[in-house]
Amino acid sequence: MNISHALEEFIETARVARLATIDPEFKPHLVPVVFVFDGNSFFVPVDEKRKTVKPEKLKRIRNIQNNPNVALLIDEYSEDWTRLAFVMMQGKASIMPFQIHGDIQLQQAYKKLTTKYLQYQRIGLGEMCIIIKPEKVVSWRNSQV
Amino acid sequence: MNISHALEEFIETARVARLATIDPEFKPHLVPVVFVFDGNSFFVPVDEKRKTVKPEKLKRIRNIQNNPNVALLIDEYSEDWTRLAFVMMQGKASIMPFQIHGDIQLQQAYKKLTTKYLQYQRIGLGEMCIIIKPEKVVSWRNSQV
Repeated sequence: MNISHALEEFIETARVARLATIDPEFKPHLVPVVFVFDGNSFFVPVDEKRKTVKPEKLKRIRNIQNNPNVALLIDEYSEDWTRLAFVMMQGKASIMPFQIHGDIQLQQAYKKLTTKYLQYQRIGLGEMCIIIKPEKVVSWRNSQV
Repeated sequence: MNISHALEEFIETARVARLATIDPEFKPHLVPVVFVFDGNSFFVPVDEKRKTVKPEKLKRIRNIQNNPNVALLIDEYSEDWTRLAFVMMQGKASIMPFQIHGDIQLQQAYKKLTTKYLQYQRIGLGEMCIIIKPEKVVSWRNSQV
């Protein structure tokens, strides 16, 4: 998978992405997510904000466990439509705990998330993480409005 | 389908949504879209911006023709995470031309789109429209950060 420098910068500066999974009835499911990207994979924390719902019960988690195919969209809306752009990745997702003995990739993702989102310094980051390995990248920039 | 007044206002004021479809390989596909909502259905114009690509060839259109199940997400990101909220609709989509003899719903959607997005007064609105009838609505507001 090749991601250009310009695209990587577009991805790095984005604060939010949208994650699509497929539910057991073959219907798409969509949520906004925060994320970091290490040049190869995307890391999406599984927030345990709603303390009555265990993360493994979250719909997005169950969907990924049933079907690892996901899509992640990064875009920023502007009223100046000549500035519209997006990047959409299709890939496979897996669920992992951040703390796996000796896994440096996940440790770095944890650090990157708490540095990118200072909000986590107050509310704490959960234990689990969705890792997305992009297989196809579609990028689009509006140049013909 | 019941949509509360507060939710309808949240939907009405949003300028952008994200549309998930499912491709023939059962992988989700995601794009940002503009839209209007008439209280029952969502209307997403099929923009013919890239003049080399006919709208029926657009991936989202082919996906909907193969599988009408879609999801539409409306959310606004804020660095103040207590303000995060989203509404996600799962439903069925169909592709229709705006100009169908005597179809008032589509005529009104066309008007609503050109009023909501003044950009169309300059670039013109395409002929085709994706109509989404929501079957399930999930709304979420962060109250526990």
